[in-house]
Amino acid sequence: MNTNIIPHSFSVTTSMREKLKGHPGRVIWFTGLSGSGKSTIAHELDLRLNRKGIHTYILDGDNIRSRLNSDLGFSDRDRAENIRRIAETAALFADAGIVVITAFISPFRAGREHARGLLPRGRFIEVFVNCPLETAEARDPKGLYKKARRGEIPDFTGINSPYEEPLNPEIIIDSGNQSVDEAVEAVIAYLNKE
Amino acid sequence: MNTNIIPHSFSVTTSMREKLKGHPGRVIWFTGLSGSGKSTIAHELDLRLNRKGIHTYILDGDNIRSRLNSDLGFSDRDRAENIRRIAETAALFADAGIVVITAFISPFRAGREHARGLLPRGRFIEVFVNCPLETAEARDPKGLYKKARRGEIPDFTGINSPYEEPLNPEIIIDSGNQSVDEAVEAVIAYLNKE
Repeated sequence: MNTNIIPHSFSVTTSMREKLKGHPGRVIWFTGLSGSGKSTIAHELDLRLNRKGIHTYILDGDNIRSRLNSDLGFSDRDRAENIRRIAETAALFADAGIVVITAFISPFRAGREHARGLLPRGRFIEVFVNCPLETAEARDPKGLYKKARRGEIPDFTGINSPYEEPLNPEIIIDSGNQSVDEAVEAVIAYLNKE
Repeated sequence: MNTNIIPHSFSVTTSMREKLKGHPGRVIWFTGLSGSGKSTIAHELDLRLNRKGIHTYILDGDNIRSRLNSDLGFSDRDRAENIRRIAETAALFADAGIVVITAFISPFRAGREHARGLLPRGRFIEVFVNCPLETAEARDPKGLYKKARRGEIPDFTGINSPYEEPLNPEIIIDSGNQSVDEAVEAVIAYLNKE
């Protein structure tokens, strides 16, 4: 009987995984108010990068809140845990050589800085989708601001919970004035420069 | 001011992501006792597939327990949550077009069936690394069986917590008699047949 299974001494490295893809893994982390346009810009970026042959993936409310984080609510503690798990999952994707795009309000600096700290230097790209509250509230694509103003949503970012603006984001999108195309171009230009 | 950001109407599909990679995303889920050889076989498989140009990733204790699931202990509830999150993360990787390999004891049928249910039919491949308890205990690469026998580990699979064998796994490895190479070949043969 072969009782001599030896614990693995060699693993596939990140650079071996990246070599297959032809580019390094990265996290492109969108942050901004609800209604700022994060998700729209992120999905258009995903499409544009995919067409250029870049191996991307997107993490957003659609595939995270109802699945991996379905056990979490919206208390301060649960929101922090939500962002922590997203950060860890994004870091796994980057380690796999994927350019992973995340689109969450992620209102607190501490959570975003934790996400940054999980990646090697230069692999985390914070994109601040800067949008005046009035503009985001006027758009209100999901009717959430109206609900929050009626007091139906506790701790809604921008209304009764703070949004902590990034201090040194890699990219700032002026969502009130830039079009989706211009925003996507700004991110692609940054990636090409790297 | 452009206040007309329209919610995204088009997203990159799984098949678009898979097209870049040249193969479908899949989950290859190893299950078996501690010391059965799961991790060794999984890492060797990862290496062999990577050399064949297949875009793989591995989820195992090394990158999950200390990171994404660092908040979890080893109570029944936490072990179930550990496997649930691994299953959800693996499903995200498969959706990204990656062949993701998981190597966890995952002793309970319910947890593995939940993982299977997250994937389209045929995309979840359960590999049962069948190893007699005596063989696994004789190997005891991490000294865990000794500790468990001394009563220092509550709920250790095979000693004081059950291992529920898969009823219909796609692949069974006879870990007491097959070499690591033979085990890896068996998985690759299954993948080629698909």
